[in-house]
Amino acid sequence: MGAPTLGIIGAGQLAQMSLAPAAALGVNLEILAADSHDSAAQFFPSTIGDYKNLDQLIEFARKCDVITFEHELVPNGHVRRLEELGHTVRPSSSALLHAQDKAHMRKSFASINLPQPRWKVVTAVSEIDSYPVILKSISGGYDGRGVRMVANQVEAQTALTQWGSALAEELIGFDRELSIMIARSPHDQVSTWVVTETVQREGICTETISPAPNLSDATAFSAQQIAMAIAQHIGLVGVMAVELFDVGGTLLINEIALRPHNSGHWSIEGATTSQFEQHIRAVLDLPLGSTALLSEWAVMGNVLGGEKSDLFRPYLHLFARDPELKVHNYGKEVRPGRKVGHVTVTGSNLKELRERVQHAVDYMSGVISE
Amino acid sequence: MGAPTLGIIGAGQLAQMSLAPAAALGVNLEILAADSHDSAAQFFPSTIGDYKNLDQLIEFARKCDVITFEHELVPNGHVRRLEELGHTVRPSSSALLHAQDKAHMRKSFASINLPQPRWKVVTAVSEIDSYPVILKSISGGYDGRGVRMVANQVEAQTALTQWGSALAEELIGFDRELSIMIARSPHDQVSTWVVTETVQREGICTETISPAPNLSDATAFSAQQIAMAIAQHIGLVGVMAVELFDVGGTLLINEIALRPHNSGHWSIEGATTSQFEQHIRAVLDLPLGSTALLSEWAVMGNVLGGEKSDLFRPYLHLFARDPELKVHNYGKEVRPGRKVGHVTVTGSNLKELRERVQHAVDYMSGVISE
Repeated sequence: MGAPTLGIIGAGQLAQMSLAPAAALGVNLEILAADSHDSAAQFFPSTIGDYKNLDQLIEFARKCDVITFEHELVPNGHVRRLEELGHTVRPSSSALLHAQDKAHMRKSFASINLPQPRWKVVTAVSEIDSYPVILKSISGGYDGRGVRMVANQVEAQTALTQWGSALAEELIGFDRELSIMIARSPHDQVSTWVVTETVQREGICTETISPAPNLSDATAFSAQQIAMAIAQHIGLVGVMAVELFDVGGTLLINEIALRPHNSGHWSIEGATTSQFEQHIRAVLDLPLGSTALLSEWAVMGNVLGGEKSDLFRPYLHLFARDPELKVHNYGKEVRPGRKVGHVTVTGSNLKELRERVQHAVDYMSGVISE
Repeated sequence: MGAPTLGIIGAGQLAQMSLAPAAALGVNLEILAADSHDSAAQFFPSTIGDYKNLDQLIEFARKCDVITFEHELVPNGHVRRLEELGHTVRPSSSALLHAQDKAHMRKSFASINLPQPRWKVVTAVSEIDSYPVILKSISGGYDGRGVRMVANQVEAQTALTQWGSALAEELIGFDRELSIMIARSPHDQVSTWVVTETVQREGICTETISPAPNLSDATAFSAQQIAMAIAQHIGLVGVMAVELFDVGGTLLINEIALRPHNSGHWSIEGATTSQFEQHIRAVLDLPLGSTALLSEWAVMGNVLGGEKSDLFRPYLHLFARDPELKVHNYGKEVRPGRKVGHVTVTGSNLKELRERVQHAVDYMSGVISE
């Protein structure tokens, strides 16, 4: 068979972090980048093109044995067309649609009775029954964009005027947010990592703790069952993040992502097989790797752009202070609030690990100066 | 300061395995590759050029803030010239000379009374006192090339005719071979990893065990002291491997390499900071990372080219059999005996780890078929 050629559409940090396992496995890689300054394109000789342009997608696909994605922005019709032309696309267009169209996801999951917040697609304010309510753009939202907590009809009208229609979801009084990463291969091999607690601030994930602290076996099992049910139902190939609301141990599905995800970054240092390696194994139909933990806890913190435009100089202080700190700098231009990197520490003292992560991200963002 | 531009001369597997930490640290990278098919050049948009051509080296150096090497083949005079032109080269030409000129190394180490086999530079057979003796080419040898055990005058004459002169070394009846990796930064921060046992077959390392089993604290300390003495004496910047003969707990220096080394590959999975990340930290004068072990044992096996030209297909069997196996495929054309990849496993049962590594490398090389 020889090493296949894997095409990744998208060249952000997720593609960049896929380079190491792709190189280790000796996979021939092709990357379609929107811009030569994209994180992965800085390190890999990528094709520069427009993922919304079908002709360019087809030309790119011709170079690849298997095509996958690092984002959900390729129009679903384009993905279907690639499949019709005989290209192997993983995950498939029909699986991908669940991450591209939130109404489709809710409807599809409801059909197999998966636990979800109450939901309704609305096109007019009159269709909204009560406030406050969560309104979500049907497609295109991430990192808090396209999601609003709406308190009254005026705010709802603003959102609907902007989006045309929206997914209205019951506001859940959750205790915390969780995420579980799962991988599935065409051979139907499935593997999950431990459940992760994700800490959000203003709709953006700032910290993850793996495994989620104080999680009962029953709730962990429930998360795994939900992820496996989704994977089977949508015919997942690759890795998927399932974001969950934890309401007193009862889980409700918030969002899914059909690709490596921020809530799985800890797996680079924290698990035998990272989400990036596992995604490659899955889409190439190789046996999946062990997802065993390498330490008791793994804590990840996102570095959000702040006042410092230079993310390199902080290393002098941070690396001297914490020789075990692992930094991932995405090589992006620093803009306020933008995810420009992440840090991970692993060990056995969770309180201390969280303090070290907090210090590192605050220092890199310029929130603190020493 | 902003992220500096690091230039690596050489694009083999050592440069390839440096890509992941360079990307994680957000370093701007430049690579000078001899050929576009070189392991690292397959993954990084490299400059194709001749490292023996001074003009090309100077042109390459102009793009870099710091220049380092993944091999010792750049003529020392060229490295000196780069330094004279004001370029920052790490390790320096004077440090590098110890790995390029074996006679210089022996003489330099003798001047500070480091433990070595008895040695003598010879240009004529008459200068050789007794047989058997080890003859080494003064420069250019590695992986068993340029090193011969010579039994008599006829064989010695053959070597001397070929090489002109040679380093004659006492044949050591060692119990085993060890290696210790060390890093040193311009700030004089120094860190070592645990001592590794290297298992050689026909002059080529086939397996490493970290930490070396049944090593007394005194011998481990001695290895560390030797490595630190060399690092100080030669003004090392970067990582260095010191290969040692273990003769009943007494250590003698065999060879050194001033770069990441095969005997340190285990550190990718086995230590908090890999040799590749540490080398980058050291040459960029960043604080060094922790070299703590992540598990009790790390066993690495080299995949030597055999009958199988396809190193990808074996994954189907190997990954199913051993979900914890970590493979590094260098993407090289398979030629008999050539190092084309390595595998690593970590854990607590050394016997089992060694069996798993042996199976994997035998299967990938085609020595066994199941």
